[in-house]
Amino acid sequence: MTRALTVSIDAMGGDAGPAVVVSALLKTIQRHSAVNFILHGDQVELNPLVARQPKLQGRVTVRHAPGRVTMDDKPSHVLRRGKDTSMWHTIDCVKQGDADVAISAGNTGALMAVSMFGLGIIKGISRPAIAVIWPTLKGQTIVLDVGANVEATDEMLVDFAVMGEAFAHVIFGLDKPTVGILNVGAEEQKGNDGVRGAAQILRNSNLPMAFQGFVEGDDIAKGTVDVVVTDGFTGNIALKTAEGTARLVGSYLRSALKRSFMSKLGAVIASGALQTLRRKLDPRAQNGGVFLGLNGVVVKSHGGADAVGFASALDMAIDMARADINARITTDRSRITAESAGARTGEL
Amino acid sequence: MTRALTVSIDAMGGDAGPAVVVSALLKTIQRHSAVNFILHGDQVELNPLVARQPKLQGRVTVRHAPGRVTMDDKPSHVLRRGKDTSMWHTIDCVKQGDADVAISAGNTGALMAVSMFGLGIIKGISRPAIAVIWPTLKGQTIVLDVGANVEATDEMLVDFAVMGEAFAHVIFGLDKPTVGILNVGAEEQKGNDGVRGAAQILRNSNLPMAFQGFVEGDDIAKGTVDVVVTDGFTGNIALKTAEGTARLVGSYLRSALKRSFMSKLGAVIASGALQTLRRKLDPRAQNGGVFLGLNGVVVKSHGGADAVGFASALDMAIDMARADINARITTDRSRITAESAGARTGEL
Repeated sequence: MTRALTVSIDAMGGDAGPAVVVSALLKTIQRHSAVNFILHGDQVELNPLVARQPKLQGRVTVRHAPGRVTMDDKPSHVLRRGKDTSMWHTIDCVKQGDADVAISAGNTGALMAVSMFGLGIIKGISRPAIAVIWPTLKGQTIVLDVGANVEATDEMLVDFAVMGEAFAHVIFGLDKPTVGILNVGAEEQKGNDGVRGAAQILRNSNLPMAFQGFVEGDDIAKGTVDVVVTDGFTGNIALKTAEGTARLVGSYLRSALKRSFMSKLGAVIASGALQTLRRKLDPRAQNGGVFLGLNGVVVKSHGGADAVGFASALDMAIDMARADINARITTDRSRITAESAGARTGEL
Repeated sequence: MTRALTVSIDAMGGDAGPAVVVSALLKTIQRHSAVNFILHGDQVELNPLVARQPKLQGRVTVRHAPGRVTMDDKPSHVLRRGKDTSMWHTIDCVKQGDADVAISAGNTGALMAVSMFGLGIIKGISRPAIAVIWPTLKGQTIVLDVGANVEATDEMLVDFAVMGEAFAHVIFGLDKPTVGILNVGAEEQKGNDGVRGAAQILRNSNLPMAFQGFVEGDDIAKGTVDVVVTDGFTGNIALKTAEGTARLVGSYLRSALKRSFMSKLGAVIASGALQTLRRKLDPRAQNGGVFLGLNGVVVKSHGGADAVGFASALDMAIDMARADINARITTDRSRITAESAGARTGEL
């Protein structure tokens, strides 16, 4: 008998503490009946929170971890001294095979370090990346890396393309996702060595993706491709710039609608539509970055997420746990390696 | 007797051709009574367009340039074979002292190459940069570089900080602008060698700027600082990502307001406010990137700009021509150089 799908949760990770995690669980447990949860953290805090919720009985287990990673802890410090933390226990639980996916709202750098140390990197992949799902005019696009690596070589960008394509396959159900590399122009000669080199490798590869060459910043929200590949520096800044812009436009709209009696009246009458817009722009609905490239799946929730936000990250974690993304990453990456070995032999 | 302030215009640069430039001039000439204009381009096209507008007589001179740079021309090709083009003539006119500022809606790479070749780089500055003015929650922020350099060393980023600070001084009238370097986190150890090195130099410098360290992508639209410094790769992608996001939110709003009778009614009643919002988000109002770091001022209008867009780029060009930005750039850059020489001597 196999156990039910299980999610390992760092209950102490977010800014708001474990109460938010438990509130999120109450939502998630209704949406996913066949999933169990293991909460890692201080049992003195966690046990009463869970005991108060009859719906969680039998579905949620608390495992004690006395330590806690703070947002200021350096990753190297956590690697050396963090073995008793809820974050460490959360990842270790996946490593031991007790859970299928790990989730934390804690310190991103520490979570990546602990995940890499605990789970290891998929054979053939140079570095893991963080992927997010980005709302677009056409639906949704995957963007990676949004912060794991401040620099990326051509081979790393190729790895990200493979991981993004596999992600689009398992999450969007696309057989041959379209993939583009983020650049300052669409022409072949544009950009730096990294993006040009990666484009060259992908153009010559025979993968289950439709490689579209370079895309520009505005192509992300247009939904020009299913997967946008970039280094973690550019991707992180693009993601936060987009968040800032969406808030700016929202603020313009609110102040425009408050300016006169007529505009206030119009806003009241159209309040249903404005509510829909607000929901659509709610960053909590898209919460959750996925660490790809590890021997195990790890989801990072935003540190400031409330229960709604953490529940969407949990949805993402459950979707990821159900999908066998790593099999596809391994196959596709080894295909590229074999192809370029073949190409090199051919050149001799 | 000194001549009136004069703008040198590449009339053949934009996608829409010289008719748009002439329409823009009709707007600009009313706003700026003491400014003259020299149009460079094919006189067979230009003369009749100008002759048809009595208001332009005495204010606008046409100078014939038979050639034209296309959007696909490589910069190196234009440098070798482009001496007869309207773009080349436009820059040369500033070099010869016949005009105070040059403007073109043409090929950005070619315009930068021709400008660097024709005008030369300010002594002490390593590379020119393209700066734009970005709307924020607090007003406006200058962002540079948005596309001149796909990579930037620490010294280049320091140059950009100096040029951005000078730009904020002459355009916003700020004595001590706040400056931040775009990064993936605010902590000192975050980012790559370039941003960390530049922050180190600026922290120790004694310039007329309030250096705030690192800022993140969402700080741009928040207006956290007056000047955001970044390399041209990241800056270009951030700018286009923001444009794409603003369009996405606008499209969400339109479709939300069309969904029901009530929302349509509300939109009609609040139409004045929605019109204000549309104007505020109109990319044409912010059209114009400024090339900083050259011995002469060059403004780049968007290639697809219409008359309204080109007229705002002309406004920017006239503002820049009136301000003596290069004097401040030269002084501040040499102050940093002297300081670091002093620091090195002190170390011996």
